[in-house]
Amino acid sequence: MSGAPIRTIHSAHHHCGWDSSLAPVSTVAPGDTVRFECLDAANGHFAPGSTSADIARMDPDSVNPVTGPIFIDSAKPGDCLKITIGEFEPSGFGWTAIIPGFGLLADQFTEARLKLWDYDRSAGVPAAFSEHARVPLKPFAGTMGVALAEPGRHSVIPPRRVGGNMDCRDLGTGTVLYLPVEVEGALFSVGDTHAAQGDGEVCGTAIESAMNVSLTFDVIRGEAPPAPRFETPGPVTRHLDGAGYDVTTGVGPDLMAAARDAVSAMVDLISAQRGMAPEDAYMLCSVCGDLRVSEIVDAPNWVVAFYFPRIVWG
Amino acid sequence: MSGAPIRTIHSAHHHCGWDSSLAPVSTVAPGDTVRFECLDAANGHFAPGSTSADIARMDPDSVNPVTGPIFIDSAKPGDCLKITIGEFEPSGFGWTAIIPGFGLLADQFTEARLKLWDYDRSAGVPAAFSEHARVPLKPFAGTMGVALAEPGRHSVIPPRRVGGNMDCRDLGTGTVLYLPVEVEGALFSVGDTHAAQGDGEVCGTAIESAMNVSLTFDVIRGEAPPAPRFETPGPVTRHLDGAGYDVTTGVGPDLMAAARDAVSAMVDLISAQRGMAPEDAYMLCSVCGDLRVSEIVDAPNWVVAFYFPRIVWG
Repeated sequence: MSGAPIRTIHSAHHHCGWDSSLAPVSTVAPGDTVRFECLDAANGHFAPGSTSADIARMDPDSVNPVTGPIFIDSAKPGDCLKITIGEFEPSGFGWTAIIPGFGLLADQFTEARLKLWDYDRSAGVPAAFSEHARVPLKPFAGTMGVALAEPGRHSVIPPRRVGGNMDCRDLGTGTVLYLPVEVEGALFSVGDTHAAQGDGEVCGTAIESAMNVSLTFDVIRGEAPPAPRFETPGPVTRHLDGAGYDVTTGVGPDLMAAARDAVSAMVDLISAQRGMAPEDAYMLCSVCGDLRVSEIVDAPNWVVAFYFPRIVWG
Repeated sequence: MSGAPIRTIHSAHHHCGWDSSLAPVSTVAPGDTVRFECLDAANGHFAPGSTSADIARMDPDSVNPVTGPIFIDSAKPGDCLKITIGEFEPSGFGWTAIIPGFGLLADQFTEARLKLWDYDRSAGVPAAFSEHARVPLKPFAGTMGVALAEPGRHSVIPPRRVGGNMDCRDLGTGTVLYLPVEVEGALFSVGDTHAAQGDGEVCGTAIESAMNVSLTFDVIRGEAPPAPRFETPGPVTRHLDGAGYDVTTGVGPDLMAAARDAVSAMVDLISAQRGMAPEDAYMLCSVCGDLRVSEIVDAPNWVVAFYFPRIVWG
């Protein structure tokens, strides 16, 4: 259960690396609900009117800021931190980008490209992607994590055994996340909120968007999971699946190569069938298409499939 | 559209390798619908009363038989073979096995284990997995493919650019599959029918089950896709998703290791929470749980997630 928040952690209290020596912003008790203001992954760099040229001016040291950390009273190494995800308050402004050198098809897409979104704050209305497509929204937090036991500053970009930048698109309202605690008080932070994203986040960015989120914390003694796990309260794709899927596959002995092939084939298919620029198709795939492993046992070849929801075409 | 079948290809006409020199069983015209009798992946080796000891007596040269090949009139190299999947007629008997040396967690599960299924032929009734669980069914053909251009016999076990043992669990009724044609007449075969399987087929077997399936063939000139692709007619998981999911993750720089970690964590979770033997949990994961790539861009670590549908617990 997610109760009413007892306080708000403002986004002025953000950091860009996991570090067990960071002073906590606040201490909360198990059972407490806390509201977090989350910056977007570019730390407010983009605004209405921004263009692709602004991508090169992003500050690499300030990307993917997370709000926190907070100290959860009584949480100790070896415990499990249980986080019940409550309501999101989306800002209505978002961005998606192709950032050179970043993303699953970075070798194919070498030029910066920025797409801005102006979406309904209720998140109940699909968001327009130019005249071509409308993307159903499902807000979630891409990054939720706790401090690592190892001292020092650890980049906030890669996900880790303690969570962090997991980008699991089902970490939305009602989901319960379980993380292993490695330091006293856990030192939890959250950020990288997304209005929508497909499994894989294939171009490297989702609908990146500042928003607030309320989270309820509990501690389960001595039950640290080996890696993050979560429970969804119900179906996870019904906002997307009504019109079925177009699916492309990659087949071969390397999962990463197969994933690239599947996504590249979908970009080609959308470009050919819809007359959309490949860069736009790639970004659209990232915000709503899902990367799945269809088969991982029939050696020496595996099948990775990319599922694109046709509901997007209206 | 799938019309009434013009003929049945009986399972006596089966083969266990892709070979462009195989004589076609039958020639059909574009637009024709054909009914195929498909053997199960063990070629009828198991029957009610079979035990785990029978696994060692499987004939490795006769596994994964496919029915065919059929020659599709006018299909030429460079064309696309369009296959509209019609109705399945499931047999009602099925099996799932842990086969030593095979499966995603072959290093952890080294002993043979056989689970037999006696399910409702309508496939509308979930199938019981001992007293613990009931698995919603969705019949599909694990293997659909055409002959490779390269001469000689090619194993039927791995999937390939021309399809074959793809084990995409959404190749069920209503789905349209597109395969590249590499030889005159395509030389299409189908088999490895499953009553249910999750994405990944993680233990190496699904609910393996003989059944008939009707398929309609068309040829699209000069439009060979680079790898198999398909279109689903509607939602793909609504039979499973009603009660939400338990999700475990694997986080790290290698997708295969992350997949293993995610599935291993789910086996442990189910064993701990449900008192189920790990071997049973592993087989259950294979027939209904889905392996997804949540994040594949936040270098150096990726997130692979295993989604287990809670509806199975009733």
